[in-house]
Amino acid sequence: MLSASKMLTRSTAAGGSLRSATAAVCIASQRWASNMQCRLAARPIGLPKDSDWKFTEEPIPEAKTDGDVVVKTLALSIDPAMRGWMNDARSYLPPVQIDEVMRAGGVGKVVSSKNPKFTVGSHVSGSWGVQEYAYMPKEIQSTIGLTNIDMKLGNVSQWLNPLGMPGMTAYFGLLDVCGPVKAGETIVVSAASGAVGQTVGQVAKARGLRVVGIAGGAEKCAFAVNELGFDACIDYKSGPKAVSKGLSEHCPKGVDIFFDNVGGEILDTVMTRLRRNARIAICGAISQYNNTTAVEGPANYLSLLVNRAKMQGFIVFDYAPRYMEGIQEISQLIKEGKFISKEHVESGGVKAFPAVLNKLFAGENFGKLVLKIADE
Amino acid sequence: MLSASKMLTRSTAAGGSLRSATAAVCIASQRWASNMQCRLAARPIGLPKDSDWKFTEEPIPEAKTDGDVVVKTLALSIDPAMRGWMNDARSYLPPVQIDEVMRAGGVGKVVSSKNPKFTVGSHVSGSWGVQEYAYMPKEIQSTIGLTNIDMKLGNVSQWLNPLGMPGMTAYFGLLDVCGPVKAGETIVVSAASGAVGQTVGQVAKARGLRVVGIAGGAEKCAFAVNELGFDACIDYKSGPKAVSKGLSEHCPKGVDIFFDNVGGEILDTVMTRLRRNARIAICGAISQYNNTTAVEGPANYLSLLVNRAKMQGFIVFDYAPRYMEGIQEISQLIKEGKFISKEHVESGGVKAFPAVLNKLFAGENFGKLVLKIADE
Repeated sequence: MLSASKMLTRSTAAGGSLRSATAAVCIASQRWASNMQCRLAARPIGLPKDSDWKFTEEPIPEAKTDGDVVVKTLALSIDPAMRGWMNDARSYLPPVQIDEVMRAGGVGKVVSSKNPKFTVGSHVSGSWGVQEYAYMPKEIQSTIGLTNIDMKLGNVSQWLNPLGMPGMTAYFGLLDVCGPVKAGETIVVSAASGAVGQTVGQVAKARGLRVVGIAGGAEKCAFAVNELGFDACIDYKSGPKAVSKGLSEHCPKGVDIFFDNVGGEILDTVMTRLRRNARIAICGAISQYNNTTAVEGPANYLSLLVNRAKMQGFIVFDYAPRYMEGIQEISQLIKEGKFISKEHVESGGVKAFPAVLNKLFAGENFGKLVLKIADE
Repeated sequence: MLSASKMLTRSTAAGGSLRSATAAVCIASQRWASNMQCRLAARPIGLPKDSDWKFTEEPIPEAKTDGDVVVKTLALSIDPAMRGWMNDARSYLPPVQIDEVMRAGGVGKVVSSKNPKFTVGSHVSGSWGVQEYAYMPKEIQSTIGLTNIDMKLGNVSQWLNPLGMPGMTAYFGLLDVCGPVKAGETIVVSAASGAVGQTVGQVAKARGLRVVGIAGGAEKCAFAVNELGFDACIDYKSGPKAVSKGLSEHCPKGVDIFFDNVGGEILDTVMTRLRRNARIAICGAISQYNNTTAVEGPANYLSLLVNRAKMQGFIVFDYAPRYMEGIQEISQLIKEGKFISKEHVESGGVKAFPAVLNKLFAGENFGKLVLKIADE
């Protein structure tokens, strides 16, 4: 049903091609004037099903009161963290409520405004959710993280990837949670070709670290090494004990930093290879998010003790006041041709959201998963 | 077989009594001139058995070459870490080899010396192992951690407890690994009445923290609250979900610091109660050391992520250059009557070592477990 348009964005300075996703968004003419929204209908057990979602259509909103902003969504970020937001559990953000528009980060264009900070025609990012248009009164704009973005620094997809939440997650997880990083240290990053992994690896390379990825499949591994410039990438699907063997081969001195997006068996295996004073950033655990049984804890956690190592969790939103540091460094690397980003852009608009989300959990995306909602 | 002499040491300034262990050491007259040693005979599977040990007798050594020191052991520290040293596995110290004298920390008196740093008659501590006399040529003295100790600051048992390795473990684990600590924060410490736990709790109280212990049995819990001054202590043996219920009751705002000596289910339960920016010190995991199946990993480790929390391992020996900081603060608290230490002193000498070690794993000790080897 979904036609994927895989987009490789490379700085033109590096001689690469800059293509935009070409698939047109299907908006049937009978609903041109409506705002399609995807809402949570039920709390999923395991992998989300179609019946966990419902769609509503509302009139396109307008800015009325002082401070109001209305944004037209251009594209949405499809993230592993979404699965957690759907559970009725205490977490770093309140759960999405039943009947509420599903939370999602997006990039859009201001189409109606009574707020001088956000002028009509300008581009913004923020977590306004899975809908074609978002009405945002002043009081919710900071909660949602509504921010002006500079399209000279990157295109729509890049603002959802290296310059957006995944990029900032990578940047601060690497340099703050695992910092200080030292040239010559060995870093392992799981989900290496994914949104966060690609930025972690490239920023680490720029700082002189040895970078070893873990990814699923030969194609993703070849991309990490040949396109992203990783020193090596281990295909965890390539056979029994692939991760363990790969770590022996590619991290002969052990692992100084592990940036984990996956959890489960991969985390447990990397723990057996820690060097003294190793740091593990717990960024995510996509292998565990749809478990209906208990999460697998890392049985080898006592490796932390013998190696004086730490394992630390973090939430990117805590770094919001410092995002400009990350945006500046990464956009500079892009400009210099030292950084590429790969987005996997799906078309189909808001209606396609449930299926696209499940592609993420099936590992069917290759690069940062983006759902295109509309052209400019 | 073993007569336990439980010793409660309290500063006389606080009006308490200062008693020394009274049980005489049985040295049969036929071996008065020999050095009894306990050696590792086989690598244990699960709980160590009698056949994993063997005893040897050698002539009492003498200092011969420049730098040599010979120490008569007065008492040995019986520690959970010993179980790990017996495994043939990569760790922070090399494994004890088969036929080697079992590693143990001790306090003793110099009886023969060709080293001006360690004069005959002075007291020392170090890891010279389970033997009545230890011959230490100069080249191994720093590896063993041979150090002069000041008996005005504490008695033999105290030099194996708050002023020794457990005390330093507590002090640096709390103030460095979990630091900075802030008055008003809530700390939970497992094995609360044990060697490390009692110092963690009392140093934390002295710094203004709310201290909640976890211990096995009503007697240990009452001791933690009534003698050590903890705010509360949860008896994990008192019924199903005792820890979970106890944490709800005694840590209503959640847990800022967890100092874990136990691992397993207790670690996993405390993880569900972490506050934002919580710190977990992984000091030990006595519940897991004799497992013949895989270690239980903390299934709730993703709590680290949502709470921006860290879990960090550490090894006390790394802090050796800073031990004097801890010794000064703790001995000052003892002097002011603000700190008590509880040692559980077993007699029986070197021959009793295997049985006394297993008491530790059975949780039968109450306070820091010490094996008395000889009178002064």
